[in-house]
Amino acid sequence: MTDPLRIDLRAFRGALGAFATGVTIVTTRDKDGRDVGLTANSFNSVSLEPPMVLWSLGKTSQSLKAFVEAGHFAVHILSIDQDSLSGRFAKSGGDKFVGLTVERGQGQIPLLDGCAARFECRSAFQYDGGDHVIFVGEVIALDHSGRPPLVFHGGRYAAVIGTSEAARQEPRAATEGGFGEDFLGYLLGRAHYQFFARMRPELERRVLREEEYTDILSVLSLRDNRSVTELNALVEFTGYHVTQEAVASLEKRGLVSLDSATDPDPRVQLTAEGRRTVIELIAVAKSIEADAEADLDQSERLVLRRLLKKVLRNTDPGLPSLWEAE
Amino acid sequence: MTDPLRIDLRAFRGALGAFATGVTIVTTRDKDGRDVGLTANSFNSVSLEPPMVLWSLGKTSQSLKAFVEAGHFAVHILSIDQDSLSGRFAKSGGDKFVGLTVERGQGQIPLLDGCAARFECRSAFQYDGGDHVIFVGEVIALDHSGRPPLVFHGGRYAAVIGTSEAARQEPRAATEGGFGEDFLGYLLGRAHYQFFARMRPELERRVLREEEYTDILSVLSLRDNRSVTELNALVEFTGYHVTQEAVASLEKRGLVSLDSATDPDPRVQLTAEGRRTVIELIAVAKSIEADAEADLDQSERLVLRRLLKKVLRNTDPGLPSLWEAE
Repeated sequence: MTDPLRIDLRAFRGALGAFATGVTIVTTRDKDGRDVGLTANSFNSVSLEPPMVLWSLGKTSQSLKAFVEAGHFAVHILSIDQDSLSGRFAKSGGDKFVGLTVERGQGQIPLLDGCAARFECRSAFQYDGGDHVIFVGEVIALDHSGRPPLVFHGGRYAAVIGTSEAARQEPRAATEGGFGEDFLGYLLGRAHYQFFARMRPELERRVLREEEYTDILSVLSLRDNRSVTELNALVEFTGYHVTQEAVASLEKRGLVSLDSATDPDPRVQLTAEGRRTVIELIAVAKSIEADAEADLDQSERLVLRRLLKKVLRNTDPGLPSLWEAE
Repeated sequence: MTDPLRIDLRAFRGALGAFATGVTIVTTRDKDGRDVGLTANSFNSVSLEPPMVLWSLGKTSQSLKAFVEAGHFAVHILSIDQDSLSGRFAKSGGDKFVGLTVERGQGQIPLLDGCAARFECRSAFQYDGGDHVIFVGEVIALDHSGRPPLVFHGGRYAAVIGTSEAARQEPRAATEGGFGEDFLGYLLGRAHYQFFARMRPELERRVLREEEYTDILSVLSLRDNRSVTELNALVEFTGYHVTQEAVASLEKRGLVSLDSATDPDPRVQLTAEGRRTVIELIAVAKSIEADAEADLDQSERLVLRRLLKKVLRNTDPGLPSLWEAE
């Protein structure tokens, strides 16, 4: 036997955080017929035959008695968009089920909606586990939606993104002094140009130059009535310079109007025709977006945007916001 | 008591796969002094005071006896780049430790290197769990590297990407018929142009136009001696058309040479000067890449590339490879 341990609690919690887990809500019904539920990430599988799962609960939990006495409980594996549900069931006290759609399982235990998977269990064993009780349940019913899971890692919610596919195909390596298929500048440029290449026929059909759409019309669609100087502050990082000639040409085609013919820095507004054109083109862009991420699941879509925004922050030359007035 | 269960084993495995977990290797030393270890994702925390963790092992496992008899075991939480180590310890038989750097912990148990976290445990309880034994260990030593973890979900390896940060800041929403900050076409375009904006001063210093670098010189750096027609097949999706005049202008500046002055479709090679120029510019681009992903961890870098490649596949207009000869 080792002496009483001197493991620092904070260090222990920190190291446990290195183990990523799904997030579950475990529910049951107490002897008085009240629904009980709490968030737990101590879930895991135990046995295949018979099918058994386990989770553990602190001995000081208000819900302990209900689970110790319960003949059945249900484990809900939460999906990526259930982080607020996880938060609700992580707090103690109050009726956590208010306003939720609840089905009834074995023993009238409450079953929640919209999860990645769900297990109804018969209480099989309860074991001592230090300051927790380990509950082992025999699975008597299950369902599985295929939704991407919510996970918990390092004290935060996270998404899970499969990597096997990427591993299967080795990226073309960089040559000496050159770049390979994993070079971020290449991937970003190629993704942008392939996306935009699908816009081009639509622009040509409307006799619009690329920059007329991306650097003038679509910028005005976010906030109208900007001066040429303001437009340039927003778009010059693309290498394009908005000139008075360019806006005059759009004016001639009835897509924008200028508040002055003589002001060297006129304010530009979309006409009704201009606005209609942008709305049509944005609709096209959104259908390209749908194709571009057709086989990305919800977690992958979320994470791709989040990582691109990190790259935007890291490469930001200090641009004003496209959406807000200065 | 419920009747013997009729849960389909495949459905049970599938539903369990919805619960994402970290991947661990558990090691010990058997009575004969042999190192024993295996991959397990049935790990979880149990108790804080005393600090306890658990995992479970199939009753038919060859390693069961060693763990049942062992006074100590160690749990290693694997990091994102330890998927092959996970594979090695998931197979039964053979000496799994060959060639590995092994430290020795309490009771001479083998400790592996490069993990996200590591727990040395004193065997505390062993419990029945259907076809598995549940091992509860009291943690007597730990370390924690902060490396991003390997996870297992839906039968595959995966990475964990935090989402809390993204959730904190609400993206600017799309206006009616407009686009918001989460529009993929916007994020890709802006990321590309912000990245490339940092290249522009370097190009100007060398009196090079953007397209001369991106669509001719850097393409030739991947494979030299392409005809103008071949170059166009590779780059026309960007909206730029490589002309004979463009390559003639680069030739005049000593950056490329042409195999014929009269051929309407001459082959283009980088000169030594041209190659030096491209290598310098790619070095600049790589330093921009380092800045662009400065605060991305290893999992985030891997996942960003994987997701961009998915977008590339989904928007591919059928382009030939930049790297391979046709």
